[in-house]
Order: sequence, then structure tokens, then C-alpha cells
Amino acid sequence: MRATLMYQAGDVRVETVPDSVIKHPTDALVRITASCICGSDLHPYHHMTAAEGPARMGHEFIGVVEDVGSDVGTVKRGDLVVSPFAVSDNVCEFCREDLQTSCSHPEANFWDGIPDEGAQAEAIRVPLADGTLVKLPVTLDSALMASLLTLADVYGTGFHAARMGGVGPGKRVTVIGDGAVGLLAVLSAKRLGAEQIVLMGHHRDRTDLGRTFGATDVVAERGEEGIAKVRDLTGGEGTHAVLEAVGYLPAYQQALGVVRRGGVISRVGVPQYEEAPIGFGSLFRHNIRLAGGPAPVRAYIEELMPDILDGTLEPGRVFDETTDLDGVPDGYRDMDERRSLKVLVTP
Amino acid sequence: MRATLMYQAGDVRVETVPDSVIKHPTDALVRITASCICGSDLHPYHHMTAAEGPARMGHEFIGVVEDVGSDVGTVKRGDLVVSPFAVSDNVCEFCREDLQTSCSHPEANFWDGIPDEGAQAEAIRVPLADGTLVKLPVTLDSALMASLLTLADVYGTGFHAARMGGVGPGKRVTVIGDGAVGLLAVLSAKRLGAEQIVLMGHHRDRTDLGRTFGATDVVAERGEEGIAKVRDLTGGEGTHAVLEAVGYLPAYQQALGVVRRGGVISRVGVPQYEEAPIGFGSLFRHNIRLAGGPAPVRAYIEELMPDILDGTLEPGRVFDETTDLDGVPDGYRDMDERRSLKVLVTP
Repeated sequence: MRATLMYQAGDVRVETVPDSVIKHPTDALVRITASCICGSDLHPYHHMTAAEGPARMGHEFIGVVEDVGSDVGTVKRGDLVVSPFAVSDNVCEFCREDLQTSCSHPEANFWDGIPDEGAQAEAIRVPLADGTLVKLPVTLDSALMASLLTLADVYGTGFHAARMGGVGPGKRVTVIGDGAVGLLAVLSAKRLGAEQIVLMGHHRDRTDLGRTFGATDVVAERGEEGIAKVRDLTGGEGTHAVLEAVGYLPAYQQALGVVRRGGVISRVGVPQYEEAPIGFGSLFRHNIRLAGGPAPVRAYIEELMPDILDGTLEPGRVFDETTDLDGVPDGYRDMDERRSLKVLVTP
Repeated sequence: MRATLMYQAGDVRVETVPDSVIKHPTDALVRITASCICGSDLHPYHHMTAAEGPARMGHEFIGVVEDVGSDVGTVKRGDLVVSPFAVSDNVCEFCREDLQTSCSHPEANFWDGIPDEGAQAEAIRVPLADGTLVKLPVTLDSALMASLLTLADVYGTGFHAARMGGVGPGKRVTVIGDGAVGLLAVLSAKRLGAEQIVLMGHHRDRTDLGRTFGATDVVAERGEEGIAKVRDLTGGEGTHAVLEAVGYLPAYQQALGVVRRGGVISRVGVPQYEEAPIGFGSLFRHNIRLAGGPAPVRAYIEELMPDILDGTLEPGRVFDETTDLDGVPDGYRDMDERRSLKVLVTP
């Protein structure tokens, strides 16, 4: 079968690899029909050393179940399924608390942590298939496929940011970042009833999409200038929630600048830093809280799917390019150069 | 009148100062009947430079209203009142959200931020008296005075830690620090129904009091050894909430070590650091949240007082030494040398 491998920063190849096969009775084998490239795939695209590669890539997919192990009960051959970006048993004490990204099963993992599988490929072995996969009530030709694929990561991740930020009616929200996750954090904040949604981003086509998703204001400026703009837009106080969908330290510093006293900074951009200000002058003085982490998107799929199925929401609008497997290396380049927002891959 | 002044680290004096007087129509003048020394007073006792001094000291008191400005309506001459450690109007948007320590009134402040007043004194001018002071339904000879005085800071602060940590029935809790705030965080966690309360502290007399307040386990070890002990006591997982009542970086690091995946670190010890780990390996990976700050104790006084009045809870047991004003300098020394847990001052 064919699959995507990253050899080192900037070096993505599509090659023939050994076929994925069922190894454990709890596995399913899925033929991938839709996958994509994630903003987080750009981190290794910038920084991976040759010693760390080659790595199988991709952690979001929809596909058709081709085979199941003897212990799999919830999906069967022929089912169309979506997978979260993390594998989990969905029954342990953490999964039952809707924290599937901290599942305590020994096989639980992020797809990115499973070395011999990846979703930018023709097929994939899914460990803990009963806990991980969710059946989709559509057929392969559904026009909703792009939106349903966002349930694998970016929509659930944007929603997690909003949920952990305590977004609800009457709340003012700042979203930092106009990538797919930031835009879907806007959509999620709108869905949860936020009163004001300020989107901080400087790519006009993206922030325009953010407006259609529900952003009431857009701030293109960054740093101190951007902070001042958000303060101006919020009566000087900043916003109850700040959804940080970037992961770099300046985005966190920006969040500190625009969060309201007593508010929440909810991070879903994977932090590319370890130490940051959390003392008296930053978080403590005004009881500002910090939340977020890898989204337990498995917990949100059933909640978010109905709005997609009935056409109310179209999170799939974040995809602005579609390619086959051969086009994946160019897709990385396009996303890296900000020529594409998010690339859909149809193997 | 006489009042306590700190000239620099280790140099505390009781001197005659100008009488406190009413300056604004919203002021009250209170004759102090009970005050105390706070663990946070030890920070300047260790670090204050001569250039920063002399500073008036004390931010917790009970007293009798001696006079009120023309705009004061909720307290009158002769009322026995308690004051939170922060002055607030109790009507602004932040106060209405129970965040009185972030009150937006221009006169709002911590007592420690008001240069010409202090509670380790014979009298005090109380700005925003209507918002700040709470009447006590007891007489001056009440045996409950010590417990009622804890409503000014340490009990409300311990309670804030527990509240912000989401403590409730079924939750496991670690309290870091066996000072007055830590011990009252234990009492608060017990009051809120915590299932398990692990107190980390190494002063045997204090942790014994912690046990009577509700600690189910005591861990005297610190650092990695202490973390391992707490993990052992909690099925390897750590606790849902960690109430950090110390403020030094090692206490935060200890909190990272004992918090459960998806749990909350709730800080009420004033951070003596600014930068700390919050990246993937510390908070982010397992959606660990960070909360806390200066406690809006004004918000909690009415909620916490009934248990004191009816004798159910005795937070005043944290006081193990009583002195008059002349004994205040020795009181600082005793608390610094850990010979006293908390010193009550009766001017």
C-alpha cells in the first residue's frame, strides 16, 4: 500500500510500505477514503531531524472498515467510520470522564505516536477499534464528507477550546489564530452562544471565513497593538475567554494581554514552549485561569455531528484544497506557505 | 494612635503614628479589637529593603465602628465588623461576579496597598465601608472571635483554593502547605465533601491539626519522595485537585507531580516566581488546569459564617499565640521561626 512518510523537515514522500494488517483481536483495518494535513503536521515539517525520520504521517481520517479482529463489536466490514486523532478504549475511568486523550489503556495513543501507521495513506490498522471509531450515517458519496472529517480533529479541537474556556451565552471571547482550529473555535463559540467573538488573525481570506463562522470582530494587528485593539473592542476589559489556537509563546503572551480579570485562557495549540509567565503579574493577580490540552474529540463527535448532518453548520469549509496521495508533499508546502488553509486528501 | 511598621526585613516596630481619620464620605473609622499576623507578612519580613520601608502592616481585623462618613449606610457607630484583606465597593461588575479582589472602583485595593493604614494597629480608616465591612452578630466578649477573624483572610483563602479547585463529593484533594491557609484549605475541602484529603506538610503539630480539620492522609516528605507518596496513596493517579498554599516554585512543581490527569492546580499562595513550566510535558499533555489568585474573601463571609456561629467548625484553631501590640515584633519572629502557626493580636 502507499503511505506518506516524512524523512526530515521539508522532506515529505509518498512511498510503498508494507500493507497494514490486523494484529490484535481489538483492531480494525480501515480503507481510508478521506484524510487531511493538519497544522500540527507543520511542526515536524519545520523541525524534524533526519535521525527522527522517516515517520508515518496523518492523524485524521474517514474510511470504510475492511476487516475487524475477533473482539470488535461496534463496527463491522463495510461501515463508514471516522477516527479521532487519538486511539482510546472509551471505557477507562478517564474516557468515562470524557478525557479520551488521557485514556489509561496500554494501547491508547495519539496516532502520531504509533510508528507504523498513519492516516495520509491508503489504509490503516486501528487499535481499540470499539473505543476509537464512530460510524457515520452517510454514504461514500455524501457531500458532507469534508465537514464530517473535521470531527477527527480540528472541529473537536476548536470546540474543546471553547468548552474549556467556559464559553456560553453572554460571554465575550477572543480567538487567537486564523488556522483551521482557530476558525472552528469561532464556529464553536458561536454555537455555544457567545455574545462577542473577536478573531485575531491577519490572513484576510481566513478571517473572512471566520466572519461567516460567527466572528463579530477581526483584529489583524499582533502584539501590543493587537492587544490594544481587542481592549478597545471590549470596553477596555478584554474577554471572558481567550481561545489560543497557535501554540507559540507570543500567542500566549497575547492571550495574557486580552483576557478579562477572572477569565480563562484555553489553549489548544500545542505549546512550542515549556516555561511561561504564570506569576502575580500575569495570571495570579486577577484570578485568571489556564485550561486546555489535546482535545478529547472522541467525546464530542456525537454532540457535534447532528448540526453537520442537517446542514446547520459547515465546518468543512476550512478545506480549500483537495489532492490525492501523490499531491500530499505539495499540500504540505502549500499549507506551510499559507497558500492553503487545510488540504483534504482522498487516497 | 499606635501601629505596626516594618522598616526593612526583620525590623518590625510598634510606634505612635497620626490617628486614622475619616477622609471620604464612604469611609468608616474602626477601632480594632482583633488583628493578626499573616504568613504573607513574612515575605517582606524576609525581603524588604530599607528603601521600601517603613510600611504599615496588617490586613486582617475585627473591630468596632467608631465613626462613619456621610455616605455610609450599611454599618453604624458601635457595630462589630470584620474586614476582608481587600477593600472593594461590592457593586461593580467584578464584585457582582464574586471577584471582589478585582473590584474596578478607583479606591479598591488590598490593605497592603494602602500606605497610610494597617490592621496591626489601634484603629483604621476603611475606604468603601459599605462594600468592605460585614457586621458580626456577636458581642465583643464572644468566644468565637478567633474563628470569625479567619473570615478576614485565611479561611476565605483556603476556601477559595478549594472552590477554584472544583472540590466536591467524590473528589480527591492534595493540600500543599501546613500553614494557616493550607490547614483551612483542608477544612474547606472537608466542608465541600472531598473523599480524600492528603495534606503535605512536615510540621507535626500543624499536620495533627490538619487531621482534626479533615485530612485523611499526611505526607511529610517533599519533592520527588513526597510526590511518590501521594501517588501511592491515590492509586497511582494523583488527585483531582491540588490546593497550593505556599507560593514557592518547588510547591508548584510538587503540584505538577501529584495532580491527576484532567485535574486542577489551584494556587492561593502568592507566587514568589513569575515563569514556570506550563507546556506539553507539565500542564498541556493531560489537560491539567491552573486556577486561583487572591481570594475574594468578601464573597465568602456570609457563606462561611454560619458554621462558625453554630460551633460546627472552628477555623480559629489556627491561632496558637495571642499578643498585644507590643508583642507584634516578637510575633513576627515566632512565626518566622515556626514557633507559632499564627499570632492573634489584640490591640
